[in-house]
This record gives sequence, C-alpha cells and structure tokens, in this order.
Amino acid sequence: MSTAGKVIKCKAAVLWEPNTPFSIEEIEVSPPKAKEVRIKILASGICRTDDHVIKKAMAAKFPVIVGHEATGVVESIGEGVQTVKPGDKVIPLFLPQCGECAACRNPQGNVCIRSDLTGLGVLADGTTRFTCKGKTVYHFMNTSTFTEYTVVEEICVAKIDDAAPPEKVCLIGCGFSTGYGAAMKTGKVTPGSTCAVFGLGGVGLSVIMGCKSAGASRIIGIDLNKDKFEKALVVGATECISPKDSAKPISEVLAEMTGNSVDYTFEVVGRHETMIDALASCHMNYGTSVVVGAPPTAKLLSYDPMLLFTGRTWKGCVFGGWKSRDDVPKLVTDFLAKKFDLDQLITHVLPFKKINEGFELLYSGQSIRTILIF
Amino acid sequence: MSTAGKVIKCKAAVLWEPNTPFSIEEIEVSPPKAKEVRIKILASGICRTDDHVIKKAMAAKFPVIVGHEATGVVESIGEGVQTVKPGDKVIPLFLPQCGECAACRNPQGNVCIRSDLTGLGVLADGTTRFTCKGKTVYHFMNTSTFTEYTVVEEICVAKIDDAAPPEKVCLIGCGFSTGYGAAMKTGKVTPGSTCAVFGLGGVGLSVIMGCKSAGASRIIGIDLNKDKFEKALVVGATECISPKDSAKPISEVLAEMTGNSVDYTFEVVGRHETMIDALASCHMNYGTSVVVGAPPTAKLLSYDPMLLFTGRTWKGCVFGGWKSRDDVPKLVTDFLAKKFDLDQLITHVLPFKKINEGFELLYSGQSIRTILIF
Repeated sequence: MSTAGKVIKCKAAVLWEPNTPFSIEEIEVSPPKAKEVRIKILASGICRTDDHVIKKAMAAKFPVIVGHEATGVVESIGEGVQTVKPGDKVIPLFLPQCGECAACRNPQGNVCIRSDLTGLGVLADGTTRFTCKGKTVYHFMNTSTFTEYTVVEEICVAKIDDAAPPEKVCLIGCGFSTGYGAAMKTGKVTPGSTCAVFGLGGVGLSVIMGCKSAGASRIIGIDLNKDKFEKALVVGATECISPKDSAKPISEVLAEMTGNSVDYTFEVVGRHETMIDALASCHMNYGTSVVVGAPPTAKLLSYDPMLLFTGRTWKGCVFGGWKSRDDVPKLVTDFLAKKFDLDQLITHVLPFKKINEGFELLYSGQSIRTILIF
Repeated sequence: MSTAGKVIKCKAAVLWEPNTPFSIEEIEVSPPKAKEVRIKILASGICRTDDHVIKKAMAAKFPVIVGHEATGVVESIGEGVQTVKPGDKVIPLFLPQCGECAACRNPQGNVCIRSDLTGLGVLADGTTRFTCKGKTVYHFMNTSTFTEYTVVEEICVAKIDDAAPPEKVCLIGCGFSTGYGAAMKTGKVTPGSTCAVFGLGGVGLSVIMGCKSAGASRIIGIDLNKDKFEKALVVGATECISPKDSAKPISEVLAEMTGNSVDYTFEVVGRHETMIDALASCHMNYGTSVVVGAPPTAKLLSYDPMLLFTGRTWKGCVFGGWKSRDDVPKLVTDFLAKKFDLDQLITHVLPFKKINEGFELLYSGQSIRTILIF
C-alpha cells in the first residue's frame, strides 16, 4: 500500500537539546509539499558537522534531526517535482543548487543562496515536516538524515546511479567530496605537481585522493599523530611527516624536502596556526593554499600579508567547490568506475539505532567514518 | 667612435645616503661583462618604489642609483649575449626571467630566483659597474635607470618594437604593467564581470584599464579623494564612490549597488584595513580579491578567515604576474595597437636633471606619473 500523500510514522534520532545524547523516537513525517521530495534513508555517515550542533558550535533550532551525509530512495514527490520520481536512488544535498542565484549562475560558485547556513531549520515555506510527541521538530541544513524518512526540497536532491552501494556513496554527500573537491575543483591541482596536506582525518585522506586523481607526482601527508600515516600512504600520499620531528618551522622542512617547490597546500585541521603554516609552505610566488578545515567562528587570524603579495593564492571552499546537483551524480559515476576508493574511509558500520555509539567512536578518534545503516 | 669595451663617463642621479636629495654626478660606467648589456637610457618614470629606498622602507646599499621603469637603447653587449644587440630598443626589467628557476618554469610564476629583492645591489658576479669620485656605487633591483648609462644582465632586458615611443612605454617597465596585469593576468577578470578598484593612483588606473581590456561590464572606482574620479572615469571606470559618503562598511555599500555580485576586487593602496575591505567586498563564494598595493613590512594583518572559507580567493602579485621577458614586448605591441592609452597616466615630463623636482611632484600628490627625459 502506497504511503504517498500520507503522514509516515517512523524512527528518528532526535536531539531534544544541545549537549545531550540522541534519543530514538517515533516521529511523524508529513508528505512533501510542492517542489519537495520525501526520501527513505538507506545509509548515513556521521560527520563532525553534526557534532557541531550538539556542541552548539553551529546555529540550529531544537528539537532537531541532524545528519546530512546520506543515501536514500525517493518515497514520494510533491506537486511540480520533475527531476526525480519515486524509486530513484538519491543523495540529499546540504548545499542546494537552485540554478538561479548568483552563485549557481557563476561557473566557480556553489554556495546557493537557498542554503540554510544560519540554522533556520525550516523548508522554503517556513515550516517543518517533522513532529514528535506533538512538538515541532526542526530540519538541519536542508537534509536531516538521521531518520528513516526525511523531506527535502527538490533543489536539495541529486539522482544517482541505481547501482551505487548506498552505504558507501553516502560519503559523496559530504566528507569525501569536501576533500576530493578541494584538490580537484578548488585547488585545481595540476599533473606532476607537489602537494602537502595538513591533517590526515577523513577529509584530509580525501584531499590526498583528489591530489592523486589530479596527477600530482608528490603528495606529502602531515599530521602530529603518526598512526595516521599508514592509511594516508594507502590512499596516495608518497610520504608522511610529523611537525614534531623537527625544531624548524614546517614550511622550512617542506622547502628543504622539495627544493622549495610545493605547489599546493591544504589545511584540513581548522586551526589558525596551521592555516598560516600551510600558506607559508606553498611556493612564495605561484603556490596555492586551500583552507578546507572550518576555522573557529568569530576569531581573527593574524598573518603577514607579504606572504600573499609575492604571488601566493589563498582560497577556501565549501563542499569542495562542487556544484551539488551537477557534480554529485558524476562523482558517483566516477566511484563506480573505480576512480577512487571509498572503502578506505569507512572504518565502522552500525545499525542506525546505535547512533550514540557511532558518535562515541567519533569522539574517541577511533573512527575515520562510521556509517549508520537503516 | 664606438664606446664599446670602454668605461663611459656620464651623468647619473646618485643617492649618497637615505633621506637626502638626488645628487647629479659624473659617474663611470664599466663595460658589460659576460651575459651583461650596457644601455643608454632614453626615459625613466618616477615610481613610489624608488622613494622607498630614499625613506629606507626598502633594503638597499648606499651610495645607490635607483630608478627601474625605463626605456633605453643597447649601447654594447658582453660576451655570450645572444638575445639583444647594440641599437636595439629595450626596457630594463626589475624582475629577471632566467627561464631556469622554479618560478620561471611554472606557468603561473614570475618572481625569478635571480631577482634582487633583498637589496644586494650587485650584478651576478657580486660586483657593481658604477663608480663615482672613486667610490663604488650600487645597483638597484637589477636596473638602476636614473643614469644616462646603466649595465644590466641579459636576463633583465626585454627587446621591444623600435617604433615604441620611449617616454611612454617606459611605464610598461613597472607601474602600468603592475596594475594592468593584476586584472588581466593575476585576477583573470572575465568578460561581463563586475570589478571594484580600491585606490585610484597610477597603478589603480592601470587596474581599471586591465578590467576594461578584459571585458568587465561594471568597474567601480573607490577613493577617499574625489578629485581622482574624473581620470578614473576617463580610463574605464563606469562609476566612482567615496567610502566617506556612507556610514556603512564599503562592502555593504558595494553589495547594495551590485545586488551582491562583485566578482573581483583590487587593493591598490597598501593598507591592511583596505585589504580586508576589498576581500569582504567580493562575492562570499566565488569572488577574487587581488592585493596589488605593497603591504607595510613586518606588520601582521588580522582578519576572520571565515571570509575565505566560504569560497573567496585572495591573491597577490608582483609586476602584475607578467613573465617579464616574455610579456613586456607583447605589452608594447598591444600599446602600439592602441589596446590601452598610457597618455592618461603621464601628467608631467621633465628633463632628467630636474629629478628632485619630479620627486616633489610625487610627494605633493600632484602627479600620477612624472617621466624623466634623458
């Protein structure tokens, strides 16, 4: 019996307030309104950004359903939806692509004006599609994927190849694409170049994969924790170093290692000091440094702009610079063509109801990515 | 009678020590050694960078002959020089192009490793070609053009079209190219784009010319001094504003004027606060801001890196990013083809011996560019 047009009752992981564990609750999910899509979630990864909501490091309205890196199947569509249909395999998109705003129209832009970056927690009409125990539950970044069913706007969904394994390609919805795109799309790493990647977590590993796909001949992984070197070398780093192993600034260490010719550096830690180190480590005249790690909010970074004046380029990106609806299906196709290996990023797989255990793995540093299966 | 191989006695403007006027002296100019070229100077512009030496804002050895924006004719060549011959019209290059270092080999690079950025004041063999009253006189930035004759290395000279008017194309040796290249080469301004130029001096005007040549559809000139608006509009600005005319931050004023769609901004003032304003004024996701004005030395700039994280690009350039030997002859050709108008930048022409008068015009803010004729 079709559920289309009806309220669905299902399980979701609700955050009733900040700094509390997830509560698995029965919620009600309304049918999609015009230009909206209701999705049955199949798999969702646990990303540090979800934790920012728990820790109040990111604006959100409570109670809320977080989660934004998922794969699902379209359950039903609202009026006027033309680009997906029930049964389509999809990835929800935390960056919409409306196709009409300045960012969507610009070839280099990807932060659509309809992104919910300020934590409104509602869909376009100003309301939510979730209730629990009679209370309104808010959305998160146009996605909300820690639930068996969610509703998103049509501009926030990418149809992908039906052959894609949901428990893997969900990573294309956020973490993998953020790092991979920083190298491929934002940094525009060139064949034969030398790259240095500061921070070897899941996004840093994805940056390395991007440098490798782009044809870099030398990829130097950098982390204070040498336990991370093994995986970095597996995914494409040609060597790894720890800043602890030298009394010299890391920029000097890299200059000596490479004859002063690092073309691209990537900061995937989110620390001001590391951002300056990464900038100083790329070539003073033609080097490019990409900020991938989110900087601490509302804090000023102090640096010598002479670092830029001599010719360096410093840039940042959200979601690796990819245009979400255009590029996510292509990235899935590239995965199916074995252009990169997502298995290396997935360390744990848990049933959805063990979500709190998944976050414990994140906090302990044991996991690269934990995938929740629905 | 040929002067080749002989010491030439001629007039030069010597700076005996910092913070003193130029002294017109008779100096001796040695013949060029291997891979060197002796040039008879025809015209030389007065640039703010020359004044940095006077004010000790830039490293140099004294006594010194400054000047670095000139046109001349090859008088004689040293052993092994193959790319220019006596009689060739040339522009001396303060950025060499050795063709062999990492910067020269990189398609985006232009600050050749053989540039004299640290004020060594000597040619490649560690000696100078100038003496005055029995004392060694030092070179400046591989050029030293405030003299009737100078000696430069072959990698520091560009042969140009013989039809080029020396008193105009000398500007291609520094000021014009620095601004024009910031738009054309470093910023890579795209057709139909919106640009904002902070600072409407000679280099800022050249940035406007570059934005116009690149096909920008809207070019907003910004300066505290409204007297500068008229010339800016003549060279290509579509409108001009003063930050004094609004209590709002200039980034907000520009966002309102343009529907939040400034693609490129250029800082041509050299102030930290203006650099941050320029960065914040380009589009938060796909905007590019170019630092053209030299920042104050050894001072830290403080800003919120979230400005970059959301997708902006911040970059700098020396000499507009042009590869000197490759690009200067092409720029001269473009000038002869009337692709830009250098006359707009030249406000004063003086005989060489009135050099101190020329610097007074610089200090008083009356001149855009003063050209000294030899």
